[in-house]
Amino acid sequence: MDLDRLLKPSSLAVVGASVKPGKAGNVILTNLIEGGFRLYPVNPKEKEILGMKCYLDLGSLPEIPDIAILAVSAATSLPITAEAARLGIPFVIIVAGGFAEIGPDGRSIQDQMLKAIHGSETRLLGPNTMGLLIPERKLDTLFLPKSRSPRPKKGSIALISQSGSVMVGLYELAEDAHVGMGSCVGIGNKADLNENDFMDHFGKDPETKCISLYLESFSSGRAFADAARMISMRKPIVAAKVGKTPSAQKAASSHTGALATGTDLIVHGVFHQNGIIRVEDDQELLDVSQALSCLDHLMGNRIAIVGSGGGYGVVATDYVTSEANGLGLRLAPLSEGAKLSIKKLSPYFASVNNPVDLTGDVTDKMYDDVLGVLDREKEVDAILLILLFQPPGMSIGMVDVAEKWAKNGSKPIVICCTGGGFSRPVLQRLNERGIPAYGSIRRSVCALGALWERGRYLGGK
Amino acid sequence: MDLDRLLKPSSLAVVGASVKPGKAGNVILTNLIEGGFRLYPVNPKEKEILGMKCYLDLGSLPEIPDIAILAVSAATSLPITAEAARLGIPFVIIVAGGFAEIGPDGRSIQDQMLKAIHGSETRLLGPNTMGLLIPERKLDTLFLPKSRSPRPKKGSIALISQSGSVMVGLYELAEDAHVGMGSCVGIGNKADLNENDFMDHFGKDPETKCISLYLESFSSGRAFADAARMISMRKPIVAAKVGKTPSAQKAASSHTGALATGTDLIVHGVFHQNGIIRVEDDQELLDVSQALSCLDHLMGNRIAIVGSGGGYGVVATDYVTSEANGLGLRLAPLSEGAKLSIKKLSPYFASVNNPVDLTGDVTDKMYDDVLGVLDREKEVDAILLILLFQPPGMSIGMVDVAEKWAKNGSKPIVICCTGGGFSRPVLQRLNERGIPAYGSIRRSVCALGALWERGRYLGGK
Repeated sequence: MDLDRLLKPSSLAVVGASVKPGKAGNVILTNLIEGGFRLYPVNPKEKEILGMKCYLDLGSLPEIPDIAILAVSAATSLPITAEAARLGIPFVIIVAGGFAEIGPDGRSIQDQMLKAIHGSETRLLGPNTMGLLIPERKLDTLFLPKSRSPRPKKGSIALISQSGSVMVGLYELAEDAHVGMGSCVGIGNKADLNENDFMDHFGKDPETKCISLYLESFSSGRAFADAARMISMRKPIVAAKVGKTPSAQKAASSHTGALATGTDLIVHGVFHQNGIIRVEDDQELLDVSQALSCLDHLMGNRIAIVGSGGGYGVVATDYVTSEANGLGLRLAPLSEGAKLSIKKLSPYFASVNNPVDLTGDVTDKMYDDVLGVLDREKEVDAILLILLFQPPGMSIGMVDVAEKWAKNGSKPIVICCTGGGFSRPVLQRLNERGIPAYGSIRRSVCALGALWERGRYLGGK
Repeated sequence: MDLDRLLKPSSLAVVGASVKPGKAGNVILTNLIEGGFRLYPVNPKEKEILGMKCYLDLGSLPEIPDIAILAVSAATSLPITAEAARLGIPFVIIVAGGFAEIGPDGRSIQDQMLKAIHGSETRLLGPNTMGLLIPERKLDTLFLPKSRSPRPKKGSIALISQSGSVMVGLYELAEDAHVGMGSCVGIGNKADLNENDFMDHFGKDPETKCISLYLESFSSGRAFADAARMISMRKPIVAAKVGKTPSAQKAASSHTGALATGTDLIVHGVFHQNGIIRVEDDQELLDVSQALSCLDHLMGNRIAIVGSGGGYGVVATDYVTSEANGLGLRLAPLSEGAKLSIKKLSPYFASVNNPVDLTGDVTDKMYDDVLGVLDREKEVDAILLILLFQPPGMSIGMVDVAEKWAKNGSKPIVICCTGGGFSRPVLQRLNERGIPAYGSIRRSVCALGALWERGRYLGGK
């Protein structure tokens, strides 16, 4: 399945284009303008929209566009999809809800839509979909204004989401933390194109470093497992598969017409066998994907913790060593030589055991020296660096120190940076430089756990 | 134990006051100036600091201050504490580290310090403590500049924390979300005053609606359990007790000299029996405390979910109904009448079952009407309102709608408001009005779980 004209289009038609601000057909067109595509508004009632010539119908366009986006009702989408298929438009994105997710009546329209494209070259994305967001190419088919829903910068995570709201929630979390996104694809009711088509594509895409999935159902469990097994040898796959309980499965059915497929225990087994890292929600999906797209997997499970807040060191130790969380991590033993070196480098009341606590007297320089010591430790597989920016000895220069060891050192480094208005810009800057930084201990340790889960899958100790 | 002169002081001395910006003795003084206290810098080497007359020693002050804050080293703190005791200064706050947490040598100084106050009226807070932050009275003994560590506004949560960094992390989270804090007390090594003293105080304090604890050890497990049992009949207690694993207990000992007291299983049992709601980290401690300080406990476990993002509805249903999370919540059954009403009020492709999905066509008005329907439902014990502000039909006016039902309606309402730069100010405004709003489904459901845990403790169904 060649998705190039969908994901790298040159020309797009927007059917149901509107002059009214706030209407889907207006917002989508507005969001696309910046991308420099050849854009064709289609609306029989208008001559011109946003300064562009408006067309009567798809048949009147001066070319066959790569994509027709249908910002019209479910009922109207049906004949227009049929027209698109006759014209040979390769991809149709159907925004409207009111299909399989509402019950038999809607499912019937959805089935007719599939019949309409049967035998043609036309493929459907949706219906009931948020569409596509590819920041690098400014491809943005969303019906949400950018002012209300800030978009992330470009990155290397490919998100495939069965839910529009979760896709939006995730990319806004990314934007807020200055984490980039490669592609965001809303598959909605996935009547035609589904998660497997996009997994295949992103599996082969050299720009994609991590495939992230939000799923409520599987279009074909067998095909999914086969695709995942092939891909996860080369690159990580992270998935939030929701609808775990019977109540949630019922809710999923009302949301995207998803049909429950087996018990959650089976899902768990399939994920485990095929190297898919399972997460619980949008935040975890982003956090883990970020770590996996920035860092190599861990070769072992021994974590060195270093920070300036003793309390956070204890909290981190609980998270790392608790068996209940199932991450399989443990504290790295530090050599006597390392402890002696850290003792010389830090205040006399610091704690030189793992977790290392450099206390509120910490400075950027002290971190630099201590990271140097930890970098040489043979029994350390990764470093959890707890950076608190309230002490006066800390400066924005710490970002350079962290980058030096993250990029030139021998250990993967994950950063926890708690705090509010002063600390957040530092966290954002770390993320911009590709050093995964999180606002809580829980999230940082969860990221380390995923790096080790991937390491184990690929044959780590 | 009367803590009034500690928590409502009129006069404070800062020993080790400094003219150098960034030094603890300078920052503490600076932070206190706004509070309008009678302030006495003490430093034998200076005549004047920050425009205030500087004194040679505690004995030279024109009055006996309520508090002497010691911003000097561990070794120097010892004779000054002895002097404070001779003078009859009621409270001494010892900021320095280098006591029991560093081993036998430090423990010996700590023991001598206790001997120095023995038989006197003087009581110690610390050593190794961040001190006090009481926003309402602008009492701020922290050695962290406000510019680096934004302080929250006043509120009704009393935090008692054995860790300075976790205390800071928590109040910055509060500030960031516009959640108020009543008091933040760092008990540090708690050589003298400990969690039980402050629990007793806040248990009786009418301004305190929720007592929140971060603990690495218990000063007296028996006294703690007795105090908690008495208090939790009247007001909620939430606690993060860390140091659950042997490694983390060892880390706690290096942090605050805490000695491990029994296995974590015992802690769990004591908490459960005495109505203490257990949480895992600073974020959860704040989230749950916020809900408990704003809302009554739940009378039952049946949750109605209403939102505009189907995906989040499914995620929420998973969290609510999953047995693994142990919250004991379930989905409320909606009456046929309610479903019919919601059907009339919402787009035809909305989902009128619980979780209710009003879709991207949602408006403030639609929420208002649907909340009215849910408010009358007999089998709904609480409402989880998932507000997404990206759809064009939503406005800031939704804050008023939410407030109307939260304050005048019959059901407790917890709000989830995901999203970035556009959505955060709305979330902040909801919190300012005392309607608990969280940035993720997980956190909102966790808050609901705590409200029900308290309901069960107080005899709910």
